[in-house]
Amino acid sequence: MSIKTLPVACDRLTQIAREFGTPFHLYDEAAIRENVRNFLKAFDWAPKFKEYYAVKALPNPYILDILKEEGCGADCSSMAELYLAEAVGMTGENACFTSNDTPISEYRKALEMGVIINLDDITHIEYLRENACLPELISLRYNPGPLRKGGNEIIGFPEQAKYGLTGQQLLEGIAMCRDNGTTRFGIHTMIVSNELNCNYLVDTAVMMFKLAVQIKKIMGIEVEFINLGGGVGIPYRPEEEAVDLEVLGAKIRGAYERILVPAGLGEIALMMESGRMVTGPYGYLVARALHRKETYKNYIGLDACMADLMRPAIYGAYHHITVVGKDGQPCCCLYDITGSLCENNDKFAIDRYLPHIDIGDLLVIHDTGAHGYAMGFNYNGKLRSQELLLQSDGSVRQIRRAETLADYFATLDYPGLPQR
Amino acid sequence: MSIKTLPVACDRLTQIAREFGTPFHLYDEAAIRENVRNFLKAFDWAPKFKEYYAVKALPNPYILDILKEEGCGADCSSMAELYLAEAVGMTGENACFTSNDTPISEYRKALEMGVIINLDDITHIEYLRENACLPELISLRYNPGPLRKGGNEIIGFPEQAKYGLTGQQLLEGIAMCRDNGTTRFGIHTMIVSNELNCNYLVDTAVMMFKLAVQIKKIMGIEVEFINLGGGVGIPYRPEEEAVDLEVLGAKIRGAYERILVPAGLGEIALMMESGRMVTGPYGYLVARALHRKETYKNYIGLDACMADLMRPAIYGAYHHITVVGKDGQPCCCLYDITGSLCENNDKFAIDRYLPHIDIGDLLVIHDTGAHGYAMGFNYNGKLRSQELLLQSDGSVRQIRRAETLADYFATLDYPGLPQR
Repeated sequence: MSIKTLPVACDRLTQIAREFGTPFHLYDEAAIRENVRNFLKAFDWAPKFKEYYAVKALPNPYILDILKEEGCGADCSSMAELYLAEAVGMTGENACFTSNDTPISEYRKALEMGVIINLDDITHIEYLRENACLPELISLRYNPGPLRKGGNEIIGFPEQAKYGLTGQQLLEGIAMCRDNGTTRFGIHTMIVSNELNCNYLVDTAVMMFKLAVQIKKIMGIEVEFINLGGGVGIPYRPEEEAVDLEVLGAKIRGAYERILVPAGLGEIALMMESGRMVTGPYGYLVARALHRKETYKNYIGLDACMADLMRPAIYGAYHHITVVGKDGQPCCCLYDITGSLCENNDKFAIDRYLPHIDIGDLLVIHDTGAHGYAMGFNYNGKLRSQELLLQSDGSVRQIRRAETLADYFATLDYPGLPQR
Repeated sequence: MSIKTLPVACDRLTQIAREFGTPFHLYDEAAIRENVRNFLKAFDWAPKFKEYYAVKALPNPYILDILKEEGCGADCSSMAELYLAEAVGMTGENACFTSNDTPISEYRKALEMGVIINLDDITHIEYLRENACLPELISLRYNPGPLRKGGNEIIGFPEQAKYGLTGQQLLEGIAMCRDNGTTRFGIHTMIVSNELNCNYLVDTAVMMFKLAVQIKKIMGIEVEFINLGGGVGIPYRPEEEAVDLEVLGAKIRGAYERILVPAGLGEIALMMESGRMVTGPYGYLVARALHRKETYKNYIGLDACMADLMRPAIYGAYHHITVVGKDGQPCCCLYDITGSLCENNDKFAIDRYLPHIDIGDLLVIHDTGAHGYAMGFNYNGKLRSQELLLQSDGSVRQIRRAETLADYFATLDYPGLPQR
């Protein structure tokens, strides 16, 4: 069971909604900080453990500021994300660049910032060398393919995934880099997503630890770090259980001490690239009920839509919903909760039992702190919402304004359209 | 069979790519005009037939200009689309506003422009009346629900769709509007999408014609128009067959003459709201092969990504691909064609046999003229591409510039980020 509560009292939320207008994403600074601290504590046994926050999950510099203060770095996947990391001062080895199908312009920016470059393919070694340069530190992304050791069913079908190097390519890649002057190496993998089973996450660590031992045995090279990627899930449904980070840390520690330490590799640093687990549960999409509709089903139409949160519409994902101020009331009404797109999948919930909803009620859609705002589109001419930060002192700050028609039309040069 | 050709010779396309840079959507003006003319011709028997182009499919004012010249109106679904229609001069009854879960601000804009308002729900009558006014002309959207007469399996499950009024509500709604001063009525439905079976489209017309007769019998009211919605499909796969518009027009004419004329309703105007069928086949996403990758599968990475075309990634939709200049070569290589998002579903094609692709080759992804650019997002910090118009005289004009980092960061107020 995970309990789905609001980050502030109902009255306060109503006041925030009145002050800033709906819809908005609200992020809970204090909860994010506490969660990150618990996460880092669970891994404080590991040499130089560092979390590189996956910027794609919540690409807002004010959130990155908070994470930087807590000691996190940034995991970037594109030019825009590199610029974000640079603006908040996450440069050098405080950021890593994990991308695929990468244009040289992005590698050049990453080199200029001195961030850790994580190569997705063996051909990128030559691509980098020819068009820019090979840095002294290189990380390589491993894709185990159909080699699913230790029963990690987890990995789904990594042989169908576009990412990473095969084991053989990884060894060959390290040799190529070494022969071209690279002296420091890291290895990386990312083969689960939103996984709640701790053991599957541990299996990934075991696989990577064994790979590091192999690399030492075969090539005599000691990698400097192992990046376990992200993939730690969050309980979107109340009946799901969060991953116990302390248990996860302890189990990975066990594997580290069992595999790496005896091989003389007890100095290898650990890195992770979590996104969802770090901020996901601490974001809330707050919207107002605009219409009630009764046809073949009962609908509540909100003033938010899938442009603000795509996961329910495109993945059929569950997001918990609270009707503000009606927590004590019985969930006796069956609703589809919709947005306004001309897309029938623009529904935040289908056949959800909730308290009776009146027009004007505030609804809170939970767990929008990762892959929420970030995935929004402008289909149907819809504009993306503002982002608010509930600061540790209880005050609220707008950390991103809502889009305007002028933003929507910015790439058009045509008379008569709203412009900045 | 539909033949997938390029709109210009390979040499010319290569030249355009060099001049404007890749990636880009290219729209073929002459083909769009010819197609619209054929479409309108197939319905020239119908009183005051008008196509209201579904702006959401390709919300570019330069495309709307072309369609306006050909006699089309605009079907808008949001504030932004109303502004687009206004900018190109599609106002008054040259535009209709078909939305759902609509905020009053959008209704006010629609009223100000004098466009045909198509109500999605019975409660919107009172909502309009209280917060703005009821216009003299009102259209109501019909949802037949589980009443599938005449075997129209087509309709899928309209009783699961959030749109429209039930039959009973529709009659009640007309009475409410009439009692509040509305004197002119239209009825609308939209219950199929991307349908290639002509008969299913005709079934929709039959259903609506019978509804108009019923309204006359029950209430003595003659509706002024019937809007058949859109939903005419296009052959994304070469083995599929386009809907024969002439046959469609003739079959709907048969139903019109069989049902409406004998009921004394031979003056009712017909409207459609097609999007996909009007521009879909005449758009092409042109991108360059950036990387070749060989792991457990063979990958070609493009300089475009799902930000430019979401349909393959989110619907698993097929889009035909041509490798420019290699049309005569055997399709002997099995590829996944990928974009650069850190999302494994960012693939334009999976297990597609194509000619051998070299780095630097131009690839053309077909049928991006509707729901292509329009659906793009900025996830992973990706920027949306430019749009080019291949004009009827053979010249090429940029009708939308590519997004920049400054566009991406426009809603953030944070020092050090690229700004306009």
